[in-house]
Amino acid sequence: MINVLLSGCNGKMGQVITRLAQNFNGLKIAAGYDINDNTANPYPVFTSLNQCDARIDVIIDFSNPKAFGGLIEFAQDRNIPLIMATTGLSSEQTQVLKTEVSENIPVFFSANMSLGVNLLIDLVKKAAKVLEGQFDIEIVEKHHNQKIDAPSGTALAIADAINETLLEKCEYTYDRHSRMKKRGKQEIGIHAVRGGTIVGDHSVIFAGTDEIIEINHTATSKEIFAVGALKAALFLAGKNPGLYSMTDLIAEIN
Amino acid sequence: MINVLLSGCNGKMGQVITRLAQNFNGLKIAAGYDINDNTANPYPVFTSLNQCDARIDVIIDFSNPKAFGGLIEFAQDRNIPLIMATTGLSSEQTQVLKTEVSENIPVFFSANMSLGVNLLIDLVKKAAKVLEGQFDIEIVEKHHNQKIDAPSGTALAIADAINETLLEKCEYTYDRHSRMKKRGKQEIGIHAVRGGTIVGDHSVIFAGTDEIIEINHTATSKEIFAVGALKAALFLAGKNPGLYSMTDLIAEIN
Amino acid sequence: MINVLLSGCNGKMGQVITRLAQNFNGLKIAAGYDINDNTANPYPVFTSLNQCDARIDVIIDFSNPKAFGGLIEFAQDRNIPLIMATTGLSSEQTQVLKTEVSENIPVFFSANMSLGVNLLIDLVKKAAKVLEGQFDIEIVEKHHNQKIDAPSGTALAIADAINETLLEKCEYTYDRHSRMKKRGKQEIGIHAVRGGTIVGDHSVIFAGTDEIIEINHTATSKEIFAVGALKAALFLAGKNPGLYSMTDLIAEIN
Amino acid sequence: MINVLLSGCNGKMGQVITRLAQNFNGLKIAAGYDINDNTANPYPVFTSLNQCDARIDVIIDFSNPKAFGGLIEFAQDRNIPLIMATTGLSSEQTQVLKTEVSENIPVFFSANMSLGVNLLIDLVKKAAKVLEGQFDIEIVEKHHNQKIDAPSGTALAIADAINETLLEKCEYTYDRHSRMKKRGKQEIGIHAVRGGTIVGDHSVIFAGTDEIIEINHTATSKEIFAVGALKAALFLAGKNPGLYSMTDLIAEIN
Repeated sequence: MINVLLSGCNGKMGQVITRLAQNFNGLKIAAGYDINDNTANPYPVFTSLNQCDARIDVIIDFSNPKAFGGLIEFAQDRNIPLIMATTGLSSEQTQVLKTEVSENIPVFFSANMSLGVNLLIDLVKKAAKVLEGQFDIEIVEKHHNQKIDAPSGTALAIADAINETLLEKCEYTYDRHSRMKKRGKQEIGIHAVRGGTIVGDHSVIFAGTDEIIEINHTATSKEIFAVGALKAALFLAGKNPGLYSMTDLIAEIN
Repeated sequence: MINVLLSGCNGKMGQVITRLAQNFNGLKIAAGYDINDNTANPYPVFTSLNQCDARIDVIIDFSNPKAFGGLIEFAQDRNIPLIMATTGLSSEQTQVLKTEVSENIPVFFSANMSLGVNLLIDLVKKAAKVLEGQFDIEIVEKHHNQKIDAPSGTALAIADAINETLLEKCEYTYDRHSRMKKRGKQEIGIHAVRGGTIVGDHSVIFAGTDEIIEINHTATSKEIFAVGALKAALFLAGKNPGLYSMTDLIAEIN
Repeated sequence: MINVLLSGCNGKMGQVITRLAQNFNGLKIAAGYDINDNTANPYPVFTSLNQCDARIDVIIDFSNPKAFGGLIEFAQDRNIPLIMATTGLSSEQTQVLKTEVSENIPVFFSANMSLGVNLLIDLVKKAAKVLEGQFDIEIVEKHHNQKIDAPSGTALAIADAINETLLEKCEYTYDRHSRMKKRGKQEIGIHAVRGGTIVGDHSVIFAGTDEIIEINHTATSKEIFAVGALKAALFLAGKNPGLYSMTDLIAEIN
Repeated sequence: MINVLLSGCNGKMGQVITRLAQNFNGLKIAAGYDINDNTANPYPVFTSLNQCDARIDVIIDFSNPKAFGGLIEFAQDRNIPLIMATTGLSSEQTQVLKTEVSENIPVFFSANMSLGVNLLIDLVKKAAKVLEGQFDIEIVEKHHNQKIDAPSGTALAIADAINETLLEKCEYTYDRHSRMKKRGKQEIGIHAVRGGTIVGDHSVIFAGTDEIIEINHTATSKEIFAVGALKAALFLAGKNPGLYSMTDLIAEIN
């Protein structure tokens, strides 16, 4: 049984993880850490990391970039594997995490904590390799009408992953209207549909001669990021120091 | 049994119609007209309209804009309903057809001869009316990688038809990348996917609060335009002079 | 401004309606009725209908079949239009509602309160009428893995609505495996996909010669039933006595 | 430049290959073999294999089970790699091919010659491995209304491939109607949609908690089998004796 310290336990995602962890085999939340102690939880909550005296095998962090410094110090001091699922880290923080911290302890870090999205990326890379030169690649992503950026970070991550795989690199095309020319061989079209309350939908289309392969991921809630973090906890416990991601987790399952 | 004169019978679409007409109830091709008499057909073919002595109830024209003048003269002289399915008519020709010719004989004219696409437009208009103000509308069309224009004429026709229905008119958005703002209420996003040999795919997405309605048309060959013309022949025979379109045909079926 | 009495206001759907009504133009919840007065609400709540002294234009009922008798008495006494959205009424209750009660007051009753699903049914009926004899019709529905019945009541309602429209009636086919024969002309295939936490997805496929029209509805939460009830309230206020449904509401919008 | 002998060159698939080979890099059809010499081809055609004096690097066979005996004798005598794409071989012939012939020469044999379908199977196996125990798997296939068997051989091949991958094996469910129970953990639902002229569509749905991954292959013509055979020719030339399939071809590309 893996003992988890949940950092940011009283935040929105922290509470989702708390709920899901109750039926998740192989681990339990042994303690929480949050500067706000305003919520009842089925585990002790510390408002300062120093006070934490529970036996901890893995830390899941869904807190705040401000907590970063204290957290990596604590994890390295006690030699505890760290899953960094907080979004909005500065590029300096990300750099420290990937290079310095990962030399001392196992660190898990992925742009998107959903197992499904990372599996999609994995499948798409494989397909791109096999189909290169024969099939055209297009990405259609759909999100709610309040989203400000377009295309989504995940759509760009998919496109980048495809490009790393291809021998001949592609440019991204966001708009074809009124340009009046044929599709180029080295284009990846990326289309951002916006409407209603769509949580997140990504489709990668491989269109060849008289056949199409389409790989699609649909999310209907943000719980999937919590599940990804719990799976990462099982994966990371007991690993050697180093930098790990969802790709490694998927590779291990294979 | 409706007797059809098939103008342009030895062209590509003419031959498709010839083949399909053999199993089409209620009509037969009684004669063909083509300046090239190079093909064996199961009906007499005339290289000049003057020679045509068969009894004709309807003309289907899939020939060439050059044949326009002779054809409308012939149709009006003999008082025969005319289905104009030739593409690439000049705006003057279209104008003459819709105003002058349609005063004398029944004329059938539609931007797209596919029954399916016209039904799609009809359904989409109804949906837009019911959902206005509550659902966001987006169009995704897909075509082969040799297509030069984007978005497709049909996608624009769909968007225009929606706009005619809406009380508050929408602008068309072709590109959201890097503009960094939320979707506007009065936008219709139009996305042109290009790849492989896709014949034609049009999806209209109505995205609301926690529900989505999507109406899709997929064509896998150009035969569907031939079928539309044959259905139009059954519809037009015996009608009063006037201008008719697929919308009228669909309304009659209802 | 329409004043609504929300019956069953402290139940799950009642609370969803309470939340959604705050941003819904043209109506407000003026009072609630619930035998449990255990929840804070932005309107007065009565535990007995007799106590209710607020001015009420429409009643929305999302309570319990047990409350049926008292509710229809109250509505008829005070001559208030009634939206019956409680599920699980007995067939006697349904009968009373549709025949007796609707003679005295306006009654709104639909098997499915989602505007989207009812619009889908409407569109599908239109398509079936236009395409009859030329296109094969198949329905694929998807729901979560805890659903016990298959196919869904909505899928059957869609199939029944299609059949009412068709001149030649169809039989429903649920299984083709190992029967080794071609699809019959008068079949509607109905397929029940089950998996994960899918809230509800219904697709109607019209497959013809080289073209397919597909009409799809996806629900991602049960809120859509609440929205349907609120729209019904706006529709029903001020109507003459009679029985109304989502189909009438949609027809009025058109 | 690989020199191909095309066996069955004047049949339907033979002519498709002839056309496609003209723009296919790295190989050319050096000779054809067909008992009917009724078609003009851009290469010499022999009506008997003995007459064939061209230099041949690979044989593609799209002929007839009757030609099997002569063909494997010829290929083994001259030590030429053989792509067996003829369908309808007896199980004895298949057995001979896989065991005896493949000891002497390189033999390529796949139940489905489409690269896309085989890639789909490969991707689906990977996804099944990663998602086992957390996601429910369902297959929806769509074919034209003249198809007699259901589900398609390819759908069954997909399900079998998934099952080989899973630690806990699944049963196949073809019909859920009226059984009134929840989906079992160890089910794969397989649904056969039939309608119109659909060439072939296979979707594999992985439905988890609040996320769905769907992998889809759509074929719009039978040309894709010809392309698969040409790719197999490039792959097989120069290989050691043994039995090869599309899976090996895809693995080599990776």
